[in-house]
Amino acid sequence: MPEYKAPRREMHFVLNELLDADAHYQALTGAEDATPDMIEAIIEEGAKFSERVLAPLNGVGDRQGCRLEGGEVITPEGFKQAYSQFIDGGWSSLAHDPQWGGQGLPESVGIVINEMVGTANWAWSMYPGLSHGAMNTLEAHGTQEQKQQYLTKLVSGEWTGTMCLTESHCGTDLGLLRTRAEPEADGSYRISGTKIFISAGEHDMAENIVHIVLARLPDAPAGTKGISLFIVPKFLPDAQGAACERNSLECGSLEHKMGIHGNATCVMNFDGATGYLIGPANKGLNCMFTFMNTARLGTALQGLAHAEWGFQNSLSYARDRLQMRALSGSKNPQGAADPIIVHPAVRNMLLTQKAFAEGGRALIYYCAQLVDRGKQGATEEDRSEADALLAFLTPIAKAFLTEAGYEAANHGMQIYGGHGYIAEWGMEQNVRDSRISMLYEGTTQIQALDLLGRKVLMTQGEALKGFTKIMHKFCQSQADDAAMAPFVTPLAELNKEWGELTMKIGMKAMQDREEVGAAAVDYLMYSGYVVLGYFWARMAQVAQAELAKGTTDSAFYEAKLQCARFYFERLLPRTRSLSVTMLSGADNLMSLDAEHFAF
Amino acid sequence: MPEYKAPRREMHFVLNELLDADAHYQALTGAEDATPDMIEAIIEEGAKFSERVLAPLNGVGDRQGCRLEGGEVITPEGFKQAYSQFIDGGWSSLAHDPQWGGQGLPESVGIVINEMVGTANWAWSMYPGLSHGAMNTLEAHGTQEQKQQYLTKLVSGEWTGTMCLTESHCGTDLGLLRTRAEPEADGSYRISGTKIFISAGEHDMAENIVHIVLARLPDAPAGTKGISLFIVPKFLPDAQGAACERNSLECGSLEHKMGIHGNATCVMNFDGATGYLIGPANKGLNCMFTFMNTARLGTALQGLAHAEWGFQNSLSYARDRLQMRALSGSKNPQGAADPIIVHPAVRNMLLTQKAFAEGGRALIYYCAQLVDRGKQGATEEDRSEADALLAFLTPIAKAFLTEAGYEAANHGMQIYGGHGYIAEWGMEQNVRDSRISMLYEGTTQIQALDLLGRKVLMTQGEALKGFTKIMHKFCQSQADDAAMAPFVTPLAELNKEWGELTMKIGMKAMQDREEVGAAAVDYLMYSGYVVLGYFWARMAQVAQAELAKGTTDSAFYEAKLQCARFYFERLLPRTRSLSVTMLSGADNLMSLDAEHFAF
Repeated sequence: MPEYKAPRREMHFVLNELLDADAHYQALTGAEDATPDMIEAIIEEGAKFSERVLAPLNGVGDRQGCRLEGGEVITPEGFKQAYSQFIDGGWSSLAHDPQWGGQGLPESVGIVINEMVGTANWAWSMYPGLSHGAMNTLEAHGTQEQKQQYLTKLVSGEWTGTMCLTESHCGTDLGLLRTRAEPEADGSYRISGTKIFISAGEHDMAENIVHIVLARLPDAPAGTKGISLFIVPKFLPDAQGAACERNSLECGSLEHKMGIHGNATCVMNFDGATGYLIGPANKGLNCMFTFMNTARLGTALQGLAHAEWGFQNSLSYARDRLQMRALSGSKNPQGAADPIIVHPAVRNMLLTQKAFAEGGRALIYYCAQLVDRGKQGATEEDRSEADALLAFLTPIAKAFLTEAGYEAANHGMQIYGGHGYIAEWGMEQNVRDSRISMLYEGTTQIQALDLLGRKVLMTQGEALKGFTKIMHKFCQSQADDAAMAPFVTPLAELNKEWGELTMKIGMKAMQDREEVGAAAVDYLMYSGYVVLGYFWARMAQVAQAELAKGTTDSAFYEAKLQCARFYFERLLPRTRSLSVTMLSGADNLMSLDAEHFAF
Repeated sequence: MPEYKAPRREMHFVLNELLDADAHYQALTGAEDATPDMIEAIIEEGAKFSERVLAPLNGVGDRQGCRLEGGEVITPEGFKQAYSQFIDGGWSSLAHDPQWGGQGLPESVGIVINEMVGTANWAWSMYPGLSHGAMNTLEAHGTQEQKQQYLTKLVSGEWTGTMCLTESHCGTDLGLLRTRAEPEADGSYRISGTKIFISAGEHDMAENIVHIVLARLPDAPAGTKGISLFIVPKFLPDAQGAACERNSLECGSLEHKMGIHGNATCVMNFDGATGYLIGPANKGLNCMFTFMNTARLGTALQGLAHAEWGFQNSLSYARDRLQMRALSGSKNPQGAADPIIVHPAVRNMLLTQKAFAEGGRALIYYCAQLVDRGKQGATEEDRSEADALLAFLTPIAKAFLTEAGYEAANHGMQIYGGHGYIAEWGMEQNVRDSRISMLYEGTTQIQALDLLGRKVLMTQGEALKGFTKIMHKFCQSQADDAAMAPFVTPLAELNKEWGELTMKIGMKAMQDREEVGAAAVDYLMYSGYVVLGYFWARMAQVAQAELAKGTTDSAFYEAKLQCARFYFERLLPRTRSLSVTMLSGADNLMSLDAEHFAF
């Protein structure tokens, strides 16, 4: 059976040795509580909860799934109890404002916990995870009264939240949405329409569910400029704030999905349900964009989660499973065969998972620090620099890491051979669960357009330069260290090429806008490999410095160096194909008439 | 709901225009019946059966799966009836010897039918599909009596067959197998042991099941040199050849799998079951290798099947689904949005599926003609040349096309956005069903070792030269045609590079055997892209010749040229990364101590 052990040593390495969390928190405003001791204690408790409570429920959730009975959703055995433990432990309130009952810790502390919770059981983690969307909306755009009424209950975890965006005919293109909001005399609205793909839309884990619903006012302009946001609770609160009258909305059905069976993906019917406008009328989409980066970072985490789960389990299988002899002579002559970890092809798959998981962790934790700085940075300059960098890195982290996570999950399964295809080993679940991450929160293709179109080309490359400067500075700082040359030399070359490729695509795009879409996915994947290359080089540098100091933990740092080398020699060269295909032009995609794709 | 339409025009193109089936059959010995009219009629009937009977059962099979009740397996609704229609139609006997009731058509006619049947419903196709393994074993190694008794029933389809190889502790490494065969006084054997992953091991579709079981005789040498083959029928035939006495074997359980739910994957317990030796004692593995190529080609077909199924369905979705506007201005201004086929990223995914499906078809049909020539070629020289080429191309076709098929299935799903993750659209089933193909019949990693180690390096590159000569000849023949230069120039360069890369790996391997395993997968994928490049260049050449002649079907040939161009500009450049990583050396994989992969 698959198991999970929180990679404490790795998390410590990234937080403290790579990203110097202590200095980071000291530089923020109002992050005094985030001391090293406090964070270590939080990680230890979060690890235990994830390993002991959530991980054993991961397979249960997949096998049992959710049931809809008389409009009520019954979650898999143990899910509800785990959620009680979660809120009793105060986990839901960790990174929220003390004004509304939160513990006031920075976002980057929350993400460490989210990593463990999500890796142990992604489907379960979506119940509290979706609440964050609702909480962020309320925090940013709610009135004091709305915050008092809804946010406090969400922060405490007594209630959960959802985001109701998608309708059956529109996902990416929210401008097409049809759900209506009719104003009532008392200032409330009647919300009518059907939303689909509503994660945690209905369940038995909390006493109330607060839906944030995108809908149109009667006089709203067409398209994306006519969308407003509404709070639509399952139970309307009474004067004391308790969940009271049942609102006229219900879960019409549950989707049958490829994976994340433990999470209830609901069709939600709003039948003149009472709702309250949040934020300005017709500005709903803008309001949502304010925290899109955080939500997408949460999905990037899913890539890391499935890479880590696959890696841990396929590593123990590869050490145990005896099959064939090493080509260079037996490594286990007294056994019936050698453990399959002796085979280079198996090692290649293990190291790919490891490189994506550890590199992905560095990137995500780094982004989470940017979120902190964007909110709590000491100066306006620091805040806006962090925001710009985060805006640039977010589509890369979301799309690249979820693609990498899916690849890693598939490697984890492949290492098990035929057994990987069998449910009881848990590896095929990991593949199925991971597959959604490239679809929701904006597909890979949408992230790619966001990166190349909105972030890079629309800023005339400024957003890119913000990051390439950082890379350039790092490369320069290592110029005198010969041991770093195998990392710094290729990285500096790629950094230069990245800018040149961007320029070339920009020139083409001035002739034909379709060139952006034709290059975008390859450009994003290229960017992902380069960004992860930067983090692997930095990790190598930390490891080399520790080894030079004569650390007692040399095996750990040696392994870090070896994995960095693997990344540079086996994964980073994938840029060699992407740099060619991204420049191959739109014509090879656009010239075929839509009617002539098949005969 | 997903649908299937046999791509008759494409099949006709490859069979007749690319591979000149008529000339091919005329050159064979004993293939007089395979006339163009006959083949066309067979395809038309096979298409109808696949489209109308099998395709509608594909989703049914996935949803219902198989049930085990009191040792009997109940297949999904409609599977048994479809099987009756299949044998009534004479489909099971198509490519078998008339001496045993077959229709005597060449293997390459069979593969065209297998393509349609397998694409319409892969899980169903495995029931008759697995019989082929048993039939091939009997045909090659059975006594006249064994053929009379078992082969005739398998050819008629009254009985089905299985191959019982894997045990829970050994899949790839069959040398470890433990199933025992004790000789009895009457010349039969008592077979005892447990086999796993037995596809179609038990079911309700035929009156008897003939298991071909790998087991060890009491005095057998250890390892692969001590394995013998046995015929172990579910019911022992009586003197008249009818299924009679129940043998002591049974299905102990059904595996819960990621996909191919419609197929019964059985744990088979043999408890002193009566079996009969087939072929020489202790030579079981050698016997099996004689038709390994055909079996692996059958799995290569699965790559094509899932690419085609994904392509057809995501194409119609992409034409229908309205979402966003084209970047270069609306293509459907009167609609609410443009159909998503206007977006370059969607076209990229569609064309990737199309290029893999059509290129894969060309490669597989070509290989099937090699099977024909190996068996029925007019001269010994022709037969052995065909055998050598087939041995070289088989691991490429199996591993590359199943990897490509999985990628394509994922693209098909991605085009549906979030809907792709939902069962009712059928795209996630296509991904799940397709995933097994990279695992069974030898994983991608095993095929890679077979290609680079056994086929290429052990022949000092002779096997590779056999194919590169053919490519070279083709490139030379096109040297004067400027319109072919965009295909022939890169192909000729790759052909040269392929040899150079092989030489370099060969040199490294002389120093360290692990270099073979470290390069093998990248080498195989590289080879796959080049081989498909050759077939795409040939298809482009046929298309150009037709267009030059002033064909009335110009849209078809223009599309073929455009897809060839897409392949050369967007997929073939993947070799640029593979050529780097395959030479990166074993050290970046082997230097990390097995104990230090995680801390």
